[in-house]
Amino acid sequence: MDKLNVIKVGGAVVEDTASLALLLDQFASLEGAKVLVHGGGRRATKIAASLGLESKMVGGRRITDSDMLSVVTMVYGGLVNKTVVAKLQALGVNAIGLTGADMDIIRSHKRPLKKVKLDDGHEEMVDFGYVGDVEKADGQALKNLLANGIIPVIAPLTHDGNGTILNTNADTMASTVAKALAPFYDVTLTYCFEMPGVMRNPEDKDSVIQYIDAASYSKLKAGGTISGGMIPKLDNAFEAISQGVSRVVITHFNDIVAKIGTTIV
Amino acid sequence: MDKLNVIKVGGAVVEDTASLALLLDQFASLEGAKVLVHGGGRRATKIAASLGLESKMVGGRRITDSDMLSVVTMVYGGLVNKTVVAKLQALGVNAIGLTGADMDIIRSHKRPLKKVKLDDGHEEMVDFGYVGDVEKADGQALKNLLANGIIPVIAPLTHDGNGTILNTNADTMASTVAKALAPFYDVTLTYCFEMPGVMRNPEDKDSVIQYIDAASYSKLKAGGTISGGMIPKLDNAFEAISQGVSRVVITHFNDIVAKIGTTIV
Repeated sequence: MDKLNVIKVGGAVVEDTASLALLLDQFASLEGAKVLVHGGGRRATKIAASLGLESKMVGGRRITDSDMLSVVTMVYGGLVNKTVVAKLQALGVNAIGLTGADMDIIRSHKRPLKKVKLDDGHEEMVDFGYVGDVEKADGQALKNLLANGIIPVIAPLTHDGNGTILNTNADTMASTVAKALAPFYDVTLTYCFEMPGVMRNPEDKDSVIQYIDAASYSKLKAGGTISGGMIPKLDNAFEAISQGVSRVVITHFNDIVAKIGTTIV
Repeated sequence: MDKLNVIKVGGAVVEDTASLALLLDQFASLEGAKVLVHGGGRRATKIAASLGLESKMVGGRRITDSDMLSVVTMVYGGLVNKTVVAKLQALGVNAIGLTGADMDIIRSHKRPLKKVKLDDGHEEMVDFGYVGDVEKADGQALKNLLANGIIPVIAPLTHDGNGTILNTNADTMASTVAKALAPFYDVTLTYCFEMPGVMRNPEDKDSVIQYIDAASYSKLKAGGTISGGMIPKLDNAFEAISQGVSRVVITHFNDIVAKIGTTIV
């Protein structure tokens, strides 16, 4: 099976010109088939604020009302996505920018009211608004592009098949794409950000955990070494592996070729 | 040769929910290969204003400084394009949203300073900023999509190949796409808007001119029947025909299937 890299890069990297340049250089130098999935939340928050819209978050997730949906559609699908595509073209990568609506590659449904544990400990039913929970992805359509040397750059937006765009978590988009392509490729899914990997001690860059498997993950969670936003990322990672993805790497955005960092197997 | 319809729809239609719904219903019912090219200038002007940016126009064309480039990239490439794509998917059309940067389909260069005749009659050298003059288009890449039943929806943005997005006139985008596909298809290029066609008397909807050829165009221009913004549209039309496009139709957005209106041959 040919190798395929699915790289997920977060908002903080894509929104910093110098970091983005480093990441795209690395991405351009990756050999073979590859897909880039990006975030853009901080830029969306900034532009929403300029438009007089307040960003409401619950448990780290954005509440997407109708105005905010317009903002994320503009920012993720337009500003961030097309900027990345143009820069990759300049690096000789034949990129194409996509959302889940394009070629119907990722279909979702509007998230129903959901019980969420708030910071103060009590639970509440939350309406996240125009947020998509992924239903299905079309790996064949993505594979057809890749087979023609076309490199998908995917924004964290999906659609419901009835004409509505839905704001969708970028980590979930990346694992969805990786799983959908697993029947066709030996897939490595890489989550990259400003940290060198999953660390025993967030203050100590030398404390990166090289490998995590299901058994050590349970222990690391129980001991509190892994907590907060890293838990959904790792849950996503293990689920991807259970569905055919060969490995998941969590690493610094400048190490996506070397693939040092934390490997989940 | 198989038939292909390239439909260009202006900003006023895509920005009115009811008009857009009518247009997309018509577009969905067009048989065979087709491409939709859209504008979005009024929405861009509105969002720019909400962001505190003033839209500067010279001779009907937007001056695109760096902030305005971000706005049009968001609005054309994100908000308008992805909204249309999601709505077409709901109508059973396997749409894909593209700018010129995606798959490098339309390359342009930044417009050099240009002498422009202003309203008061005097001429001035104008810097239009991040505006693209089209250099080349990749008809083969578009044809590969169409051959797989994928319907391109194209936003009026191109790129310079060096990483910069450029704001590009939507009429020019449409004729560029039509010309690039002319080697592969019998192409009809349709410009649709809120009027029933080119009219002898703009107040009289029954005064639509059914056919215009090069000879009658010269007379209509000389007599002042055709003036203003219609001249670049028709110049574009004749140039498209001289480069292999079979016919150009100028019509109401609700008549793109019936193709009544003005036909340029």
